[in-house]
Amino acid sequence: MQENVKDLIEEVKNLSELMLDLAYSSVLFESKDIAKEVKLLHDRLEEMEEKIYLHLFAASRGKLAKKMISVIDIVESAKWVAFAAKNMSNMVLEGSALHPVIKEALRESDESITKAIVTKNSIFCSKTLGELRLRTEMGIDIIAIRRGDKWIFDPKKPTEVKEGDIVIGVGPSYSCDKLRKLAIGKVKKI
Amino acid sequence: MQENVKDLIEEVKNLSELMLDLAYSSVLFESKDIAKEVKLLHDRLEEMEEKIYLHLFAASRGKLAKKMISVIDIVESAKWVAFAAKNMSNMVLEGSALHPVIKEALRESDESITKAIVTKNSIFCSKTLGELRLRTEMGIDIIAIRRGDKWIFDPKKPTEVKEGDIVIGVGPSYSCDKLRKLAIGKVKKI
Repeated sequence: MQENVKDLIEEVKNLSELMLDLAYSSVLFESKDIAKEVKLLHDRLEEMEEKIYLHLFAASRGKLAKKMISVIDIVESAKWVAFAAKNMSNMVLEGSALHPVIKEALRESDESITKAIVTKNSIFCSKTLGELRLRTEMGIDIIAIRRGDKWIFDPKKPTEVKEGDIVIGVGPSYSCDKLRKLAIGKVKKI
Repeated sequence: MQENVKDLIEEVKNLSELMLDLAYSSVLFESKDIAKEVKLLHDRLEEMEEKIYLHLFAASRGKLAKKMISVIDIVESAKWVAFAAKNMSNMVLEGSALHPVIKEALRESDESITKAIVTKNSIFCSKTLGELRLRTEMGIDIIAIRRGDKWIFDPKKPTEVKEGDIVIGVGPSYSCDKLRKLAIGKVKKI
């Protein structure tokens, strides 16, 4: 069971971090679609939680039993992060009037969020995220891609970027800047 | 006042994210020093919060008044993230028995944490973080440096890395691997 619980905890941590990034994006772009995804991820996180606890109950004897409480503590903490994310997304879903100072602050924080439209001149066209290596090269995580009226959330390495895609990236402010220039084809080298 | 509140919100967001990274580190390395820093940052965040609300009360007339509630929502959400971080660090401070599965999960999550010791053969020696550009080149954030028995938390670009430093980095797993090799001088090119 150890293997399985490890994977579940890993996913809980990753989910909570993705939710937080998407939540800030939903506020910055006032996007109800992104905010809705945060809600869906919250449901998924609660499913994970249930599975983890079921595993723990099943294995609650033996010398690790006393250490199980630490797993619950970690999962609960990840849930607080997820709760914060959901709270922010709810502002967007409920159409709260956002103070302009919020967007300015989000745009200029250490870890910034950007939206970039991929044009046909961009080196991104028809490349997979794995090939582009934006994270290694620029510290940029692509957390979502909008294609037409569909969204791809948390895209992985095999996902191909296409002309017309709107990509949402999270990373250092100067890299966000470069991402936008690469997407419109104004800069040709990562 | 807008300018000032913007900077404060920006810092609240950055602080909450740094706290979360440090909290995961404190658990992974069972470091009470890092856990204590999370507590200190929590106090600083509460000071920020007070300042933001004072600014808001002072400016609570006019057409932006209705939008002020959205600022409170964002700050409250950042506080939940900080609360989660503090919760995890408390496990370490209280010496809770940690289940081994937690460290395995933290080590293998998308965003991994690593500790690397800088030896005299490393290209890191006597370079500043600004010169090393680890974030741009490898997606790695150095969130803390231990030098002798002192800690430098959230080091900035002018901070120089020295032989014997223990650096704590957060980033993609494969970059964490490379960071350790660079630190011991086994790899010579970023």
